[in-house]
Amino acid sequence: MSEAIKLFQYNTLGALMAGLYGGTLTVGELLEHGDLGLGTLDSIDGELIVLDGKAYQAKGSEGKVEVVEVSPDEKVPYAAVVPHQAEVIFRQRYEMTDKELEDRIESYYDGVNLFRSIKIKGHFKHMHVRMIPKSNADIKFADVATRQPEYEVDDISGTIVGIWTPEMFHGVSVAGYHLHFISDDLTFGGHVMDFVIENGIIEVGPVDQLDQRFPVQDRQYLFAKFNVDEMRKDITKAE
Amino acid sequence: MSEAIKLFQYNTLGALMAGLYGGTLTVGELLEHGDLGLGTLDSIDGELIVLDGKAYQAKGSEGKVEVVEVSPDEKVPYAAVVPHQAEVIFRQRYEMTDKELEDRIESYYDGVNLFRSIKIKGHFKHMHVRMIPKSNADIKFADVATRQPEYEVDDISGTIVGIWTPEMFHGVSVAGYHLHFISDDLTFGGHVMDFVIENGIIEVGPVDQLDQRFPVQDRQYLFAKFNVDEMRKDITKAE
Repeated sequence: MSEAIKLFQYNTLGALMAGLYGGTLTVGELLEHGDLGLGTLDSIDGELIVLDGKAYQAKGSEGKVEVVEVSPDEKVPYAAVVPHQAEVIFRQRYEMTDKELEDRIESYYDGVNLFRSIKIKGHFKHMHVRMIPKSNADIKFADVATRQPEYEVDDISGTIVGIWTPEMFHGVSVAGYHLHFISDDLTFGGHVMDFVIENGIIEVGPVDQLDQRFPVQDRQYLFAKFNVDEMRKDITKAE
Repeated sequence: MSEAIKLFQYNTLGALMAGLYGGTLTVGELLEHGDLGLGTLDSIDGELIVLDGKAYQAKGSEGKVEVVEVSPDEKVPYAAVVPHQAEVIFRQRYEMTDKELEDRIESYYDGVNLFRSIKIKGHFKHMHVRMIPKSNADIKFADVATRQPEYEVDDISGTIVGIWTPEMFHGVSVAGYHLHFISDDLTFGGHVMDFVIENGIIEVGPVDQLDQRFPVQDRQYLFAKFNVDEMRKDITKAE
């Protein structure tokens, strides 16, 4: 067997949704653990996209989408990355909605109880994303979530990256697909809401282990009171 | 900072409860990842206790408790171990019930969102344990759980080992305490139901990371259908 592939998850989506927005892990350190993934930035300032070992931030500023490369010194409150290795590769030759494509992807899984890395490089007839707006810790995630700017474009080439999570880990992560998009020309991106793909190459990678890290020196994390049932529902709603 | 302490969890408690009883990881490999912990054996044949780097099996055979050391070749379907390093140590000088002692232990935690390793070495006025009985995969865990032999003894010296899990990870593990006991003379042990401690030394160890492994080559695991909500309730009931 080749080397085990670890999904590196820093913090949990649940903790993020409980209001722990402060960045505590540098992007430089994050990138040592994987070349594909997603997350958010300090103060939940937009969407983090990790593609081919580089980290990008997509945010909505003054009604426009802005994508910038993230410096290794910036810190993230939540992120998940994996050293992506395609195990299933297929070409999508004809138009499909996101739901149709997701069903097709799942039809290739060898089982539903492992995490997967997902990479979809292609041309999209339509792409609909949103960005989490920069917020202070005193604003509840559920409230932030209701006022996230959304953006739509037609006819765009780019890559969707993300993680597929088994249902058992809902709360720690979000069950099912969690996908971020970035355009080839690095001008558009964000958290994927829905899309129509025209054609593309889909890669599904295996995850053998979950390497779950915690912000062990973050006093706010250590003592945060989570309402876990509410949190699981929030994640379902928000993601 | 010293080296990060990893909780090594093989498989999930949820998967075990879904009926995946077949052992797939050797005890020898398990012990490379920690010297304190718990789990069960192949075909859920009793309780696994890992103390000071040695693995023991406690089972109820013909109405009597039997404790044996486990050979490195035996396989486990589920286990969690940690290289235990006490970070909080305190002496319990007077009699307490399990609930009282657990409250006292938690009062020393620096926060409720990290896993902890637990070691309680002492003299017990009363100890009440149970053992999961060896079962085939076609018997549901909920049914197995209703017919677990229980044993009680008074006036016994020994060690409780286990893991404390933050609520967010319920389903993956069991939220709160999961404790197994083994007597000093290696004749009594099992899954802790309740106890009265007379006196003892309590150690609480930190867990910085969760190293979650999956039986990635076990076809039965890969394709098992879990009802996650039901599973979370089962764990609450059974553990």
